[in-house]
Amino acid sequence: MEQPEPSDRSWRDVWHEVIFEADTPAGKAFDVALLAAILLSILVVMLESVEEIRARWGAWLVAAEWFFTGLFTLEYVARIACSRRPWRYILSFYGIIDLLSILPTYSMVVLPGAQRLSVVRSFRLLRAFRVLKLGHMLTEARQLRRALWSARPKIAVFLAAVLTIVVIIGSAMHVVEGPEHGFTSIPESMYWAIVTMTTVGYGDIAPRTPLGKGLAAFMMVLGYSLIIVPTGIVSSELAQSALKPITTQVCPSCLAEGHDADARHCKYCGSQLE
Amino acid sequence: MEQPEPSDRSWRDVWHEVIFEADTPAGKAFDVALLAAILLSILVVMLESVEEIRARWGAWLVAAEWFFTGLFTLEYVARIACSRRPWRYILSFYGIIDLLSILPTYSMVVLPGAQRLSVVRSFRLLRAFRVLKLGHMLTEARQLRRALWSARPKIAVFLAAVLTIVVIIGSAMHVVEGPEHGFTSIPESMYWAIVTMTTVGYGDIAPRTPLGKGLAAFMMVLGYSLIIVPTGIVSSELAQSALKPITTQVCPSCLAEGHDADARHCKYCGSQLE
Amino acid sequence: MEQPEPSDRSWRDVWHEVIFEADTPAGKAFDVALLAAILLSILVVMLESVEEIRARWGAWLVAAEWFFTGLFTLEYVARIACSRRPWRYILSFYGIIDLLSILPTYSMVVLPGAQRLSVVRSFRLLRAFRVLKLGHMLTEARQLRRALWSARPKIAVFLAAVLTIVVIIGSAMHVVEGPEHGFTSIPESMYWAIVTMTTVGYGDIAPRTPLGKGLAAFMMVLGYSLIIVPTGIVSSELAQSALKPITTQVCPSCLAEGHDADARHCKYCGSQLE
Amino acid sequence: MEQPEPSDRSWRDVWHEVIFEADTPAGKAFDVALLAAILLSILVVMLESVEEIRARWGAWLVAAEWFFTGLFTLEYVARIACSRRPWRYILSFYGIIDLLSILPTYSMVVLPGAQRLSVVRSFRLLRAFRVLKLGHMLTEARQLRRALWSARPKIAVFLAAVLTIVVIIGSAMHVVEGPEHGFTSIPESMYWAIVTMTTVGYGDIAPRTPLGKGLAAFMMVLGYSLIIVPTGIVSSELAQSALKPITTQVCPSCLAEGHDADARHCKYCGSQLE
Repeated sequence: MEQPEPSDRSWRDVWHEVIFEADTPAGKAFDVALLAAILLSILVVMLESVEEIRARWGAWLVAAEWFFTGLFTLEYVARIACSRRPWRYILSFYGIIDLLSILPTYSMVVLPGAQRLSVVRSFRLLRAFRVLKLGHMLTEARQLRRALWSARPKIAVFLAAVLTIVVIIGSAMHVVEGPEHGFTSIPESMYWAIVTMTTVGYGDIAPRTPLGKGLAAFMMVLGYSLIIVPTGIVSSELAQSALKPITTQVCPSCLAEGHDADARHCKYCGSQLE
Repeated sequence: MEQPEPSDRSWRDVWHEVIFEADTPAGKAFDVALLAAILLSILVVMLESVEEIRARWGAWLVAAEWFFTGLFTLEYVARIACSRRPWRYILSFYGIIDLLSILPTYSMVVLPGAQRLSVVRSFRLLRAFRVLKLGHMLTEARQLRRALWSARPKIAVFLAAVLTIVVIIGSAMHVVEGPEHGFTSIPESMYWAIVTMTTVGYGDIAPRTPLGKGLAAFMMVLGYSLIIVPTGIVSSELAQSALKPITTQVCPSCLAEGHDADARHCKYCGSQLE
Repeated sequence: MEQPEPSDRSWRDVWHEVIFEADTPAGKAFDVALLAAILLSILVVMLESVEEIRARWGAWLVAAEWFFTGLFTLEYVARIACSRRPWRYILSFYGIIDLLSILPTYSMVVLPGAQRLSVVRSFRLLRAFRVLKLGHMLTEARQLRRALWSARPKIAVFLAAVLTIVVIIGSAMHVVEGPEHGFTSIPESMYWAIVTMTTVGYGDIAPRTPLGKGLAAFMMVLGYSLIIVPTGIVSSELAQSALKPITTQVCPSCLAEGHDADARHCKYCGSQLE
Repeated sequence: MEQPEPSDRSWRDVWHEVIFEADTPAGKAFDVALLAAILLSILVVMLESVEEIRARWGAWLVAAEWFFTGLFTLEYVARIACSRRPWRYILSFYGIIDLLSILPTYSMVVLPGAQRLSVVRSFRLLRAFRVLKLGHMLTEARQLRRALWSARPKIAVFLAAVLTIVVIIGSAMHVVEGPEHGFTSIPESMYWAIVTMTTVGYGDIAPRTPLGKGLAAFMMVLGYSLIIVPTGIVSSELAQSALKPITTQVCPSCLAEGHDADARHCKYCGSQLE
C-alpha cells in the first residue's frame, strides 16, 4: 500500500497513527511505553495502600501518582485532539476508561472525603488490554470472546439453574441450621450456598446439625459434578463448528456428493455445480 | 395454521392460551408479569428473613406476602378453571409446585407452629423456569437436560465410585484420627470426606495425625484428578455424534452396512449401491 | 443355546449359576438380595460408630452385625463349595474382599484389642460393584476403566509433575514461613501444598508472610490452570480414537483416495483395491 | 547399527554411554540406581526437617546427607569428565540442576548462616525427570509439553484476564471491607481474591459486610465458570487438528488452496489438479 509523504498529511493523522495504531515503529514504541506507565502506576496504587510503605515513602508515592496522572491527562487530551470525531472516542469504552483513570486523583483535591474513589484507579489496568493489538494476542482474545459469546444462552440457563439451587438450598439451610449456627438470614445462607457450591469453602459459616451436613454434602457433590455440564456444552459447540459445512448438492455429471459449501465445481470430475 | 374467530372459541380456550401459552402478545405479557411477581415475592421472602429489615418493615412485608399469595392463589384457581382436564394439571410437576407456593402462607394462620414451612415458599423460584419458553432458552434448556440424561448411567457409575471411596476413607479416618480430632463417627467422617474430595475444604474438621494427613492428601489428589473422568465421558459422547455421516444403506449383494454418505459402491464387494 | 435338563446338571452348576451369574431369575433375585444385605450391613457399621445411637440401640446393632456376618459367611462358604476351582475364587479380587468382609467381626472375639480392625468392614461396599452386571452398568464401568487405563502413562507424568511442584514449593515454604506459622517440617509443608494445589484449602495452615503469600498465590493459579492439561489429554485421545482409520491406498482405476482401512473395493468406482 | 569393538572406543565414550544414555543394560542400571539415590536423598532432606526425627536420628541423617552429596559430586565430576564438550553440559539445564543439588551441603560448612540454602536441595527431585527416558514416559511428557506450549498465547490472555479481575476486585474489596476485616492493603486483598477465585478458600480472610459478600459471591461464580474457557480452548485446538486432511496443493489455474486430500479437480474453477 502506498503511503503519502509525511508532509502531505495533517499533524492529526500523524499523531493518530502513533497514538491509536501499532503498525509503525513510533506507534509500537508508544504502546510499549504506555503499557509500562500503566503497570507502574498500578504498582504505585498498590504500594500506597500498604500502611508501612506509605508511612516511609508516602511523599514519593504521591509525587509518582501525580506524575502518572499528569501523563495520562496529556495522553487523554492528545487522543481527543487527534481524533477526527472526538465525541465518538470520548463515549467509547476505552474513552470512558481513560477518563476514569485520571478523575479520582483530581477529585481527591476537590472533595476531601473522596478517598474511597481511589479504588477506581485500578480500572487503569483495563487500558493495558489496548496493547493486545501489539502481538498476536488480538486473535486469541477475539476467539476467547467469541467462544464465550456464542455459549451465552447456555451459560445463562446453567447459571439460572445454579442460582435456583442456591436460593432453595439457602432457604432450607436457614430453617434447618438457624441463626445460632451462622445462617442468620436467607441472603446470608445463600452466600454460604455459593461459597459451598463453587467449592471455595471458607469455613466461616459451616453446618453443625446432621440434616444440615447432609444437605451441604448433597450440594457439594452437585457443585462438583455440575461443572462438567458447561464444559460439555462448550466442547459440543466447538466440535460442531470444527466440522467444515458440507452441502447436500449432487454433482450433475458424476453424481458425487459431499462437496464443501463453498465448492463451485465437483472435486471428482470438475463439472460445474449449480 | 388457521385460527377460529375469537367469538367461536370458548372463554376457557382464550384463557388457556393467555395463561399456558406464550405465542400471543397477551400470553407473553402474562408470562412477563408472572416472572416479575415470582421474583418480587422471592425478594420479599428473603428480606423477611433478615432480622433488622423485619424489625423496621415487618408490616409491609407481611402485606406484600399476602398480596403475592392472593395473586398466586387467583392464578392457581384460573389455571384449574381453564384446563380441560384439571386433574392432569393439578398432579403435574408445575401443578404441585404452584400449590406448594401458596400453601405455606395459609398454613401459618391455621397452624401456629408452622413457621418452618415458610421455607417451602422458595420453591416458587422453580416456577420461573416455566417462562423459559419465552425466549430461545427452551432449546438450550432441553439440550442441557438431554445431555445430562444421556450421560446418566456413566454419571451413576462415577458417583457410585466416588461414594464408595468416601465410605472407605471415611471409615478409615474415623479409626485413624478418632473422635478427639473431630472425626466423632463414620457419618461425620464421611461428611469430612465429601468436603475434602469435592475440594470444598471448610477446615472445621481437619486431620491432625501424620497418617490422617497422608490419607487426606491422597484423597485430595484423587478428587482433583477424578473430575476429568466425567468430563472425558461427556466429550467422548459428543465427539462420536460429531463424526462423519454414515448412510443406513445396505449393500444389495453382500448386505454390508456402515457405508460413507458419499460411497457409490460397496467398499467390501464392489457392487453398486442404489 | 440349548440348555441341558436341570436334572442332568450337578447341584454345583445350578448353585454356581444362581450365585455367580445374573442371567436367570434366581440369579437376579440373589444379586438384588445380596446388594440389599451389603447396604444394610454398611448402615449398621455406620450407626454403630455414632455414640448416641450405640448407647441406645447397641445390643440390636451387635445382633444385626452378627446376623450379616453369618449371612456373608454362609455365602462365602457357598461360593467356595460351588466353584469348580475354589482356590481360583479364593485368591481372586472379590474372593479376598469377601473374606475381609467377615474376618473383622470374628477377630474381635478372639483378639480383644482388635477394635481398630472394624474399619475393614467398610470394604464390604466394594462387593456392591459385583452387582453392576445386573443392569447396563457393566459396559459403562468398563468404558470408564478403559479410559482411565489408556490415559495411565499421561496421568502418571501429570501426577509426577504435580508432586515435584509440591515437594519444591513445600520445601521453599518451610524455609520462607518457618515453624512459627505452622510449616513445622517439609512433610507438613507438603501437606499444605497439596491442600492448596488441589484447591481444597482447609485454612488450618496458611501463609502469613508476604513472600509466602506470593508463593501460595502462584501455586493456586498453577493448580487452577493445570487441571485443564489432563482434561485436554483425555479429550485428545478420545478425538483420535473417534476418527475412523483411513488408508493411504489409491484406487487403481479412478485413483480415488481416502478409503477406509477395511475397504476392499473403491467406494467411488467399485474396482478392486490391492 | 554396527557397534565398534569396545577396545576400539575410548573410555570416555564407554562412560558417556553408561551415564548419559539408557539403551544399554549398564546405562539402564545406572539410571535406576541414580533414581533410587535421588529419591532416598530427598527422603533424608524431608526427615531432617522433622524436629522429633532430627533429635533422635540427627547424626545418621547428616551422615546420609554427606554420603549422597559425595555420590552426586562424583557423578557430577564423572559427567564433566566424560563429556566431549564439558561446558555445554555444565551450562545446560540439567548441568545447573546437578550443581545446585550438591552446592548447599558444602556451603553450610563454609558459611555458618547458610541453613536457609538447604531448601535448594529439593531441586534434586528435578533430576528424577532425567530418568523419564527409561520407559515410554518421554513421548507422553513431550506431548504434554507441546500441548501446553501451543496453548501458550491463549493461556496468557486467560491469565491476564484473571489477574485483571483480581486487581480490580482486590482494590474494590480493600475499600469496601477495609483493614478492620483483614483487607489491610491492596496486595493483601489481591491475595484474598486469588484464594477465592481459584476456589481454594482458606477462610483466614473473609468478607464481613453485605456488599463485600456480594462481590465475593460474584467472583466465586466467575472463577467457577471461567475454568471452562481454557478447557474449551484446548479441546478446540485438538478438534481442529483431528479434522479431515487437506493437501497443500495449489490449483494451477486459479491458485486456490485448501483442497481436500481426495479432490481431483479444483472445487472453485474445475481445472484438473496434478
